[in-house]
Amino acid sequence: MTDVGLLTPGAHRGAGPTDDTAVLQALLDTEAAWVAAQVRAGLAPAAAADAARAAARAADYDAADIARRAEGGGNPVIPLLADYRRRVERLDPDATGWVHRGLTSQDVLDTAMMLLVRRAAEPLASDLARTRAALARLAEAHRGTVMAARTLTQHALPTAFGLKAAGWLAGVQDLRDDLADLTRTPVSYGGAVGSLAGSAALFADRPGAQEAPDAARALELAGHWARELGLELPGHVWHTTRRPVLRAGQALAGVCAALGRIANDVLVLARPEIGELREPAAEGRGVSSAMPQKQNPVLSVLLKRTALSAPQLVAQLHLAAGLAVDERPDGAWHTEWPALRELARLAVAAASHAAELAEGLGVDADRMRANLEASGPAVLAERISAALAPLVPAADGATGKQRVQAAVREHAHDADALVRALVGLAGRSRPDGGPVDEPWVRRLLEPAGYLGAADLLVDRVLAAGPEGPAERASTAGPAAGTIPGGTA
Amino acid sequence: MTDVGLLTPGAHRGAGPTDDTAVLQALLDTEAAWVAAQVRAGLAPAAAADAARAAARAADYDAADIARRAEGGGNPVIPLLADYRRRVERLDPDATGWVHRGLTSQDVLDTAMMLLVRRAAEPLASDLARTRAALARLAEAHRGTVMAARTLTQHALPTAFGLKAAGWLAGVQDLRDDLADLTRTPVSYGGAVGSLAGSAALFADRPGAQEAPDAARALELAGHWARELGLELPGHVWHTTRRPVLRAGQALAGVCAALGRIANDVLVLARPEIGELREPAAEGRGVSSAMPQKQNPVLSVLLKRTALSAPQLVAQLHLAAGLAVDERPDGAWHTEWPALRELARLAVAAASHAAELAEGLGVDADRMRANLEASGPAVLAERISAALAPLVPAADGATGKQRVQAAVREHAHDADALVRALVGLAGRSRPDGGPVDEPWVRRLLEPAGYLGAADLLVDRVLAAGPEGPAERASTAGPAAGTIPGGTA
Amino acid sequence: MTDVGLLTPGAHRGAGPTDDTAVLQALLDTEAAWVAAQVRAGLAPAAAADAARAAARAADYDAADIARRAEGGGNPVIPLLADYRRRVERLDPDATGWVHRGLTSQDVLDTAMMLLVRRAAEPLASDLARTRAALARLAEAHRGTVMAARTLTQHALPTAFGLKAAGWLAGVQDLRDDLADLTRTPVSYGGAVGSLAGSAALFADRPGAQEAPDAARALELAGHWARELGLELPGHVWHTTRRPVLRAGQALAGVCAALGRIANDVLVLARPEIGELREPAAEGRGVSSAMPQKQNPVLSVLLKRTALSAPQLVAQLHLAAGLAVDERPDGAWHTEWPALRELARLAVAAASHAAELAEGLGVDADRMRANLEASGPAVLAERISAALAPLVPAADGATGKQRVQAAVREHAHDADALVRALVGLAGRSRPDGGPVDEPWVRRLLEPAGYLGAADLLVDRVLAAGPEGPAERASTAGPAAGTIPGGTA
Amino acid sequence: MTDVGLLTPGAHRGAGPTDDTAVLQALLDTEAAWVAAQVRAGLAPAAAADAARAAARAADYDAADIARRAEGGGNPVIPLLADYRRRVERLDPDATGWVHRGLTSQDVLDTAMMLLVRRAAEPLASDLARTRAALARLAEAHRGTVMAARTLTQHALPTAFGLKAAGWLAGVQDLRDDLADLTRTPVSYGGAVGSLAGSAALFADRPGAQEAPDAARALELAGHWARELGLELPGHVWHTTRRPVLRAGQALAGVCAALGRIANDVLVLARPEIGELREPAAEGRGVSSAMPQKQNPVLSVLLKRTALSAPQLVAQLHLAAGLAVDERPDGAWHTEWPALRELARLAVAAASHAAELAEGLGVDADRMRANLEASGPAVLAERISAALAPLVPAADGATGKQRVQAAVREHAHDADALVRALVGLAGRSRPDGGPVDEPWVRRLLEPAGYLGAADLLVDRVLAAGPEGPAERASTAGPAAGTIPGGTA
Repeated sequence: MTDVGLLTPGAHRGAGPTDDTAVLQALLDTEAAWVAAQVRAGLAPAAAADAARAAARAADYDAADIARRAEGGGNPVIPLLADYRRRVERLDPDATGWVHRGLTSQDVLDTAMMLLVRRAAEPLASDLARTRAALARLAEAHRGTVMAARTLTQHALPTAFGLKAAGWLAGVQDLRDDLADLTRTPVSYGGAVGSLAGSAALFADRPGAQEAPDAARALELAGHWARELGLELPGHVWHTTRRPVLRAGQALAGVCAALGRIANDVLVLARPEIGELREPAAEGRGVSSAMPQKQNPVLSVLLKRTALSAPQLVAQLHLAAGLAVDERPDGAWHTEWPALRELARLAVAAASHAAELAEGLGVDADRMRANLEASGPAVLAERISAALAPLVPAADGATGKQRVQAAVREHAHDADALVRALVGLAGRSRPDGGPVDEPWVRRLLEPAGYLGAADLLVDRVLAAGPEGPAERASTAGPAAGTIPGGTA
Repeated sequence: MTDVGLLTPGAHRGAGPTDDTAVLQALLDTEAAWVAAQVRAGLAPAAAADAARAAARAADYDAADIARRAEGGGNPVIPLLADYRRRVERLDPDATGWVHRGLTSQDVLDTAMMLLVRRAAEPLASDLARTRAALARLAEAHRGTVMAARTLTQHALPTAFGLKAAGWLAGVQDLRDDLADLTRTPVSYGGAVGSLAGSAALFADRPGAQEAPDAARALELAGHWARELGLELPGHVWHTTRRPVLRAGQALAGVCAALGRIANDVLVLARPEIGELREPAAEGRGVSSAMPQKQNPVLSVLLKRTALSAPQLVAQLHLAAGLAVDERPDGAWHTEWPALRELARLAVAAASHAAELAEGLGVDADRMRANLEASGPAVLAERISAALAPLVPAADGATGKQRVQAAVREHAHDADALVRALVGLAGRSRPDGGPVDEPWVRRLLEPAGYLGAADLLVDRVLAAGPEGPAERASTAGPAAGTIPGGTA
Repeated sequence: MTDVGLLTPGAHRGAGPTDDTAVLQALLDTEAAWVAAQVRAGLAPAAAADAARAAARAADYDAADIARRAEGGGNPVIPLLADYRRRVERLDPDATGWVHRGLTSQDVLDTAMMLLVRRAAEPLASDLARTRAALARLAEAHRGTVMAARTLTQHALPTAFGLKAAGWLAGVQDLRDDLADLTRTPVSYGGAVGSLAGSAALFADRPGAQEAPDAARALELAGHWARELGLELPGHVWHTTRRPVLRAGQALAGVCAALGRIANDVLVLARPEIGELREPAAEGRGVSSAMPQKQNPVLSVLLKRTALSAPQLVAQLHLAAGLAVDERPDGAWHTEWPALRELARLAVAAASHAAELAEGLGVDADRMRANLEASGPAVLAERISAALAPLVPAADGATGKQRVQAAVREHAHDADALVRALVGLAGRSRPDGGPVDEPWVRRLLEPAGYLGAADLLVDRVLAAGPEGPAERASTAGPAAGTIPGGTA
Repeated sequence: MTDVGLLTPGAHRGAGPTDDTAVLQALLDTEAAWVAAQVRAGLAPAAAADAARAAARAADYDAADIARRAEGGGNPVIPLLADYRRRVERLDPDATGWVHRGLTSQDVLDTAMMLLVRRAAEPLASDLARTRAALARLAEAHRGTVMAARTLTQHALPTAFGLKAAGWLAGVQDLRDDLADLTRTPVSYGGAVGSLAGSAALFADRPGAQEAPDAARALELAGHWARELGLELPGHVWHTTRRPVLRAGQALAGVCAALGRIANDVLVLARPEIGELREPAAEGRGVSSAMPQKQNPVLSVLLKRTALSAPQLVAQLHLAAGLAVDERPDGAWHTEWPALRELARLAVAAASHAAELAEGLGVDADRMRANLEASGPAVLAERISAALAPLVPAADGATGKQRVQAAVREHAHDADALVRALVGLAGRSRPDGGPVDEPWVRRLLEPAGYLGAADLLVDRVLAAGPEGPAERASTAGPAAGTIPGGTA
């Protein structure tokens, strides 16, 4: 036993499509599909594919033993293949000859990793869809929930929680291209040195050379293989052109970042002194044995953990791509496998955590308003300054704007005094001709009146969802987005 | 003076579009375009845009002083804006009021960085086009240049240098989407907290509210701004949704990786014992004062340097994206600026280095063949084994394949002995009915006969170039790809 | 102009010992010291050293031009040396012959970088001493300032702000070994390929070979050089054994981390809803033009920026060390220079920022207590449970501990009710024989009574300072650590 | 099953001290030692320690189940503790009360990780000692084995393989301080919030308070714990002062870099065209099923893989240290665990690989000399230039040095012609008065005569080994360092 996830809490949610059983299965499926492709190409008899498929059950193999033997050739394909051949032979001695013919272990390992990514993309996409739906509900429901916007940790202006949720949602919707990358991963073909020499040789001395030369038929064979596996046939050999790995890794890391930033907001806004958001509770989650009163925001902690981990894994993949050399790199290639797998594991787990977080997030609208109000009228300084500076004459060497700002600073926490001071400063009537009187100034201090284009911005994000209202309707739960017993 | 590039040799080639003058200019253009956008929106008089534009010459500003004053607000926009306002005021006192109205410094800084990236994309694209053309010529010219393919540093099978060059080319062509990302970077709008409140307020008390609400007109204003700058108008505010920065950074790093791997191959193949490739010479390049006989492959060294540096910069951007919080992050945002700029600088310089390298690369076809031949017939072991194993009967507890492999190992360096041994082992006639005789076996040992689909693979890569033959024709030089006096 | 720091606000504080002028100066001093060392070794006449020294003024050189010409050899030493030789020649034609004799450009560049680090260590050490002194004062002054300890963002138990400050201090004191590394950096010797062949040849045909062979005298020469520069003479050539670079880089990054974590705490505790700490104000710092009420914690933002940047730079150095190859690496070496210099720049600037932050940090002890009290008595749950669980009998299938915890959860915010409930549960008298009555239970809820070993832990940290009470006394300011007009 | 090492070939060699069983065991030993420490402190009866120890066998626990349940609290200690308590209770119901009393899960997890590192240090140190011994033998044996020194991939000057091996050795000897760090890791104490409140409370109402206050006794208790575990008692609480983790991680990564660079040299020098070094063969290692003639340098590939991976893990730890916040960080802490464990796994495996590589490395001295000679006399250009330039008069506008260098370039590959040309250029007699004749010039071209201080430098490295000659003697094997049948 090497690693069952003890030191990566929550990652078990991503283990299914990424653990060593999944790796083994992807490797075996890749080998079996190659035999099936040979059948499609008329090279092998149909029975060979049956035996190849029947022998390709990961559960029949001893992963730990294969891992140990992987050292000899520097990759797990060689020992796995030995065991696989034995198993195929037992089922159908004639089938053995078709196993792995013309392939190199890099073809198999690269293709299996792409298959693994593609399989991981399914739960990932499904949990991201849940997350999008839940965030869309929050954005819609909280268009009018006024709260403090914070920049560099300090209150800046009012905003709406719906707009914040729409920002989270936009980040997840932005992943569309990334998800497409993850579901259109390619097979890796090329044979021993990227020339398809081994595959082409399969067609030598075969009838049909007049219709298509060996080379074209070798490529067709790769196409059959891709179709067997549900993967793409890429335009070129990528043994040392690691674009597919980069794209997959970047996409997975993009997921981690887009979800991590939601968690960061929750971690801030769930601090007891702020108290605007609350993670959904679950039996046994977030509890402390010594401190029973605590409710730790564990989902967000784990999401942040993941967002802090993914960048180094992306760096690892970029490094491998930039260090590719020869027809098979001497170490750089080997660094990709665990990095890409870990990214997949983390991203799948994060999507599950985020969906649960978004669907059950508690929102305390009263607390949001209270925190904003505690900032006093000064939080609307931008608006006050923009509206009044043109109406206040310069005096005592200070511009109108400077005089308004001085008043804001002086009465930062006393709205009545500020209103009186501003009325006193005004030397001109309003652009619309009305007087600068207390009611007009007081209206400037109403946060809900200064949300700018928040509503329109929320609309645009909601409209940009590929699934639109339909998806949201189908998954809408009853009480999402409220703290039970709260006021949202 | 902080950094003129002393410690990043060759980076001066990327300095033009990325140095502090370029940053200042991008910031100033961003501010000036905002005034022009207000003119388009009917908010400001046309003269304001003239003054705004006239005041926006980077050369008029003291970058070092602004850099020092940037500490106070944690970003350079605030001090630059103060100087810019003074300059606009001198030109047209009435214009000052329109400067930066409704913007926040993040709008300006983010947009300026996107403008900088877009500007850097121009020399980058042009040098990558040169590189593609030169690599296409190499791929075409060297389809039949046989050389050793190397995996894990060791000779594996024959390949063609044209196929290797096509692999390099494929890596550069793969950058197409990345380049598109770099030329379609978006403006960043949102105002102080991402709600566009400041922009929307510009339209308050303005005629026209019946046709369009303030919010819609604020968005239109952002659209005018984007058009002024030649940037895209994004679907949502991205102050804390850092997708545009990630995409730009990943694209630039992708360039560094795709070019770096070419350099890695050159560094190996230009080793004196291998001697298959040679960097183009240039006055004063690659020389050693103490060792006049040396010709260091400096272009490749610098490209490898860059490929080793870009991954950590990408990690920095992913980290920033994943740590975004609130309406403006408290430190993560700040880490992006130098990282993104350095990626742009390195990528632009690398594209220039790579173009020069590809256009002038010396290829020694004789040496390639000689190195391959020095490996002896065993380098065709895969082919021999595939062709003969089915024709050799098992004996003495060894399968036919094992007997063939034993012969290959025994006579690894003696073709004649190997041919005789193999003929002696054969127990069956060939699939086509012919005899397993010395001429037939000897033909198996001819490297040029075992290049698989190399030609077709080269065709496919050449055909995939968006510019195709046209581009190549227009840039084809006379004597590219040969070592002067050599045999290529 | 490439980079004057526009995109790294605050880094100008670290520019002095690290900018390109400093690099040039270090390179020139390194070359000049080599001539002086030859004088000491009896190889060169004393006048040569004078000319060498006189020609070594960075201000006389055109850094940008040298940077451009650095491309040719892949490093700045070669063009600088050409200019330097010319300058020496002008001063003393006879001296030129001694310049750079026996050295290789790697000797010079490596040594200059070590000199640069050593010079950067001086302001760094001095600002860290200021920081330590200020933190020691805070730790001492706030031993009794009770506040909420927070784990995973939530209130956990009471602590003392003095203990938190002592934790910060401990982190800075931990840097002792790192600082020692920074002030004991070595010269890099070895000559063209690490064999000292060039240096040894200087002694050929010289008298004195009977006393010491050329090799020993070459090493002595390196020793003279080290003494001239105030650097160490290392035990071995480190051209491709990059330990000195790793140690320097790790030390600098360690500084960034130790200071960054202080900033993280300030950024949390200065949030308006928490309000326990406040950055020192300074003219023009932390202000927002649009939002005059804001006081952004800019020092902490910049420190956090730095803590987020340093890790990638350390990774860059480890990568270079792990990729060293041959007698001079083909790209990995080149990645070290800007990374090490940037680490030095960031660390020096961070030390300055941290000293200012620590010396002027505002502490609001009232707010600390208020925030803690807002958590209610439950924040002492650990203590209540430990004290009362043994005295409460099991009942209704619940253990004593579970019954106590249930009471804590039920009355989490009502101390009176909790006291009554706990007294009601108790079934045994106290270990000391006294009764479990309301006064005794109420004392358990007093936070100041549950600070554990805080005082002793503070003592130990204070005692561990190498400078101890003396340093603190000499630098103690009048009113450090209080918010003016506050209550600390 | 999550990860048995399928994608990290060779890492099974490091799995023993680092896999999940080892993690579980370290956690359990940490908990059991705490009970034993309470016995030593007179708090608990001796029988409690017996039960605690007996229950602490990792094999009795279900790691996968604990991993799953770790999500709830965000760390594995909480579920493990629940199972552990049940097991202790079964053995001795009275002992349960002493389990984990006063500890927090961070104390346990941090301490267990330090214990894990310390345990991993044992095989690591032992394999590094083997490596040092083998490298010392190589350095000694090959003092006179002349080879080409290569800088930036090109031949530069002659060197001795013994000096190269001494450089490798120096890199491993440099790890001394790192190894010391790894064997002196500290316990982590502090309790729930770093104040030791829980531990101190254990002593309340206990006799003995007159001799020592509770706080001091709590610290003594931590001291007992450290002694039980064989760990250090640190000077301060390090819950958010992550120095111990940084030091351990840097040390482990330092190991990976020091060994990786040896592998890089082997990978270059074992290329078939160079052929100077050869990895030790082992049954089933480095073989390719398709290409039986290949002997891949797998040990070096895996070492390089590791050297490319460790830097990102170090960055992860630095990031965690720099992001520490509050009394327990909300995600940064969590990123450390898998990173530190993976570093330990990789370093232990790498040490084993390196020992095997160093002990069995094949050295082909003939090939070394042949490769050097193929470079021709120009490889001694530095020497020729230094010796002859002063003796050649300027002519035709060229300095003496330039004339010598021109001759070197012209006759770079023809020693006889070069000798004649140089004799012809000389215009002065030698410094020792002798004539510049062919024999004298020819001697300058003998590589073995230009090894500089190589011998002395080797001596110094050998002398610097802490174990010195003794270790080497005791482990010296019979035939290390030669290619069987070779000429070394």
